[in-house]
Amino acid sequence: MIVGKVVGNVWATRKEESLNGLKFMIVVPNDPVNPGTRESIVAVDQVGAGIGESVLVAQGSSARKTVQHADAPVDAAIVGIIDEMEVRKD
Amino acid sequence: MIVGKVVGNVWATRKEESLNGLKFMIVVPNDPVNPGTRESIVAVDQVGAGIGESVLVAQGSSARKTVQHADAPVDAAIVGIIDEMEVRKD
Amino acid sequence: MIVGKVVGNVWATRKEESLNGLKFMIVVPNDPVNPGTRESIVAVDQVGAGIGESVLVAQGSSARKTVQHADAPVDAAIVGIIDEMEVRKD
Amino acid sequence: MIVGKVVGNVWATRKEESLNGLKFMIVVPNDPVNPGTRESIVAVDQVGAGIGESVLVAQGSSARKTVQHADAPVDAAIVGIIDEMEVRKD
Amino acid sequence: MIVGKVVGNVWATRKEESLNGLKFMIVVPNDPVNPGTRESIVAVDQVGAGIGESVLVAQGSSARKTVQHADAPVDAAIVGIIDEMEVRKD
Repeated sequence: MIVGKVVGNVWATRKEESLNGLKFMIVVPNDPVNPGTRESIVAVDQVGAGIGESVLVAQGSSARKTVQHADAPVDAAIVGIIDEMEVRKD
Repeated sequence: MIVGKVVGNVWATRKEESLNGLKFMIVVPNDPVNPGTRESIVAVDQVGAGIGESVLVAQGSSARKTVQHADAPVDAAIVGIIDEMEVRKD
Repeated sequence: MIVGKVVGNVWATRKEESLNGLKFMIVVPNDPVNPGTRESIVAVDQVGAGIGESVLVAQGSSARKTVQHADAPVDAAIVGIIDEMEVRKD
Repeated sequence: MIVGKVVGNVWATRKEESLNGLKFMIVVPNDPVNPGTRESIVAVDQVGAGIGESVLVAQGSSARKTVQHADAPVDAAIVGIIDEMEVRKD
Repeated sequence: MIVGKVVGNVWATRKEESLNGLKFMIVVPNDPVNPGTRESIVAVDQVGAGIGESVLVAQGSSARKTVQHADAPVDAAIVGIIDEMEVRKD
């Protein structure tokens, strides 16, 4: 998983039927150790994340495990809302 | 998923049989947060996207969920046509 | 999928048994929109591609859908020989 | 797999139910051959790794093989604690 | 698959049980067309590759096809020892 920050939403009326009802959020990776500009991801959200929140994002086939319809073509999902992080660099 | 722009088409007569009937479109990633030059992708389209449209692209095994023939060797698919995006960067 | 150019062959006598009979070709990604130097891939070919040809390459688990032996450890496959591409950049 | 160093922890109270009980650790890739700054990963740990330890991390669908609940949306896992490495560069 | 060179070994006593008996080798990608410094990979070996040998490496879920225990969290495997390569760049 990666740490990301939710920065926006995407709306698509015409889409794969199995995606109906899903919420698509734009997430920017936000590396707690090595910050830097990274490509944004559109992730499905079913944990209720809001704009500005720090989240855990799972990618690849694992993202499909978050949606009821196992056949939805989803490759990124918000799987948790981060409360706290601790990083020790030494 | 990523946000992309449809910029072209690919035609291949000699191909894996399970790909027959599929439409292959060239999509350039178009990051709404951190723009930049990215590698193009050839994605299968079954939502009716046209050249110039902004689309959602799913990659990896999830892309196979969009085609009837679950055994088609497809690793990228257009899964939605984007109507609107909202990005808040602060 | 990505667009690539076939540039060579790889031979391996000692290999996983399930790979017997497969042809391994070296393919260089050849982005029709944003050209540049990319890492080459070794892809299995079952559509009869030749050196110099422009091909469609599928990667990841989807590549296994091209081989009879579904248990072959294959992560890239040539799935089509490209006849024509059309790119509109504006 | 890749070699990484455990540098921190992530806590998320609101998360996918199937993630309950899992421990999330921040791991920085630590290439034994070509060192350099790499993006950190949040990996599930079930081998008991501690901060500062050198670990093997598996990514993608393989990471799900480490958790009891095969349907957990996990895409990175610590699969071993490294005792020793030997690298010969010549 | 990619072409790599075996440069070392990794030992881990505490690891996922399903990894017992597997041999972990450090492989550096060694692109026959576009050489350059790439991140090393830890790959499972069951074809008997030795230090210094040129090998084919499969990544992702396909790597699991090389191990008896299909549930081992393995995401990279040496699948062949390369005898010969031919590259034509023109």
